[in-house]
Amino acid sequence: MAFEEKFQVGMKASTSKTITETDVILFAGVSTDINPVHIDEEAAKQGIFGKRVAHGILVSGLISAVLGNKLPGPGSIYMGQELRFTAPVYIGDTITATCEIIETIPEKSRIILSTVCTNQEGKVVITGKATIMNRG
Amino acid sequence: MAFEEKFQVGMKASTSKTITETDVILFAGVSTDINPVHIDEEAAKQGIFGKRVAHGILVSGLISAVLGNKLPGPGSIYMGQELRFTAPVYIGDTITATCEIIETIPEKSRIILSTVCTNQEGKVVITGKATIMNRG
Amino acid sequence: MAFEEKFQVGMKASTSKTITETDVILFAGVSTDINPVHIDEEAAKQGIFGKRVAHGILVSGLISAVLGNKLPGPGSIYMGQELRFTAPVYIGDTITATCEIIETIPEKSRIILSTVCTNQEGKVVITGKATIMNRG
Amino acid sequence: MAFEEKFQVGMKASTSKTITETDVILFAGVSTDINPVHIDEEAAKQGIFGKRVAHGILVSGLISAVLGNKLPGPGSIYMGQELRFTAPVYIGDTITATCEIIETIPEKSRIILSTVCTNQEGKVVITGKATIMNRG
Repeated sequence: MAFEEKFQVGMKASTSKTITETDVILFAGVSTDINPVHIDEEAAKQGIFGKRVAHGILVSGLISAVLGNKLPGPGSIYMGQELRFTAPVYIGDTITATCEIIETIPEKSRIILSTVCTNQEGKVVITGKATIMNRG
Repeated sequence: MAFEEKFQVGMKASTSKTITETDVILFAGVSTDINPVHIDEEAAKQGIFGKRVAHGILVSGLISAVLGNKLPGPGSIYMGQELRFTAPVYIGDTITATCEIIETIPEKSRIILSTVCTNQEGKVVITGKATIMNRG
Repeated sequence: MAFEEKFQVGMKASTSKTITETDVILFAGVSTDINPVHIDEEAAKQGIFGKRVAHGILVSGLISAVLGNKLPGPGSIYMGQELRFTAPVYIGDTITATCEIIETIPEKSRIILSTVCTNQEGKVVITGKATIMNRG
Repeated sequence: MAFEEKFQVGMKASTSKTITETDVILFAGVSTDINPVHIDEEAAKQGIFGKRVAHGILVSGLISAVLGNKLPGPGSIYMGQELRFTAPVYIGDTITATCEIIETIPEKSRIILSTVCTNQEGKVVITGKATIMNRG
């Protein structure tokens, strides 16, 4: 199937996951981001959010999951990602990442997608844009 | 110490970590990104990179680590991040993330940093820019 | 000790473990099974079980633990396993796996065991049968 | 779409993953199966396989991934699984799990699938059969 048929503006896909304490601990180990706001409940209580929050980059992993698993899916090469963290994600929140094709550049095999994460109440926690190369 | 003294253009910090197969497996579970290029050596051999590569967002976690642990450090609120993935990161590569303050906006407690990741050969694998709020 | 003395019909062994959220996240990464029923609390609420359940194969790992650690124990070669998943296992449930020798085939060094998992209320969650080769 | 259209005999799906040392260590922790053949290289050298092998149930997790992620996919309830472990899986092997619908029982919303795992050389390491309930 040609690139133009396979990837069209308006196509979208999403995935959801509950962000657990385990995710935060494992990501702290993988990334070495040990900021107290993520791993120290007592410090987090004193801070602006009132309790531990997940790492923004951890949550962004769900965007990567949509892009790599579903749309554009396997064969994608991740060229770039813009992220705005618009609200905190607490341990136990269920996040839905949705990616929608907003532009295609067939001659370069490029696909631009909007990337939005919302929590279980529909609040937007991350917005942004991904650039993918996929030969279709 | 006032914001203006604490955060000045040109300040920089960095952190390094070897990206292991374990990191990739754990991040696959945390993110649900199970793209074969990360977890299937046989498929990866046939692909553009020739072997398994780490998730770009996983590697970006090292930027988050510099920002959260060192500069601007604890108390930082992550507002946004732009990422360009410029070269693949293979399992076993040692990545250094370096963040440097390129602009401060004292009246909004904002700090803009360039964020660059290089591998053990000095090759740039990620470039980008972070926006942080930190009251100093 | 001869096979006939070492392995006799009626011998049994068991092991117990609380199935944690961590187990589910790690097993998702190991297996790549990211079915929402295991990792998405909001989706699971809408589903038949009402909350997240552990992967059946993850729980079956406790049977493997009894067989490999205790009875028949080290030296066992796992030939086959039949599993029936009879009730859901929720995160936080404590599961006991019990294996009992129901038949031996000395000339082939084979041991057949019934394999049953129950939860903390005594409810059977898995039944089945294992076939092991162990030279004694 | 009705059950009869959605699930038809002959439909198949597969997934592949390299089985890493990390997977074995994590599965040992999750399952508590600490049989030396999986975690003790020195003991494994003396044994029948000559080196450490992955847990059979760990590898079976790839079957669970196909069933839960792809075919029949989300909404599936795992009723049962028969497994025959026909050859060892070594650390570093890349395993492909393939599930094919071999029978459907529409009045009970049941789907029976053959479940086969092969290694990177095409050798069959697991055979078996899964029973799924999925209302389509």
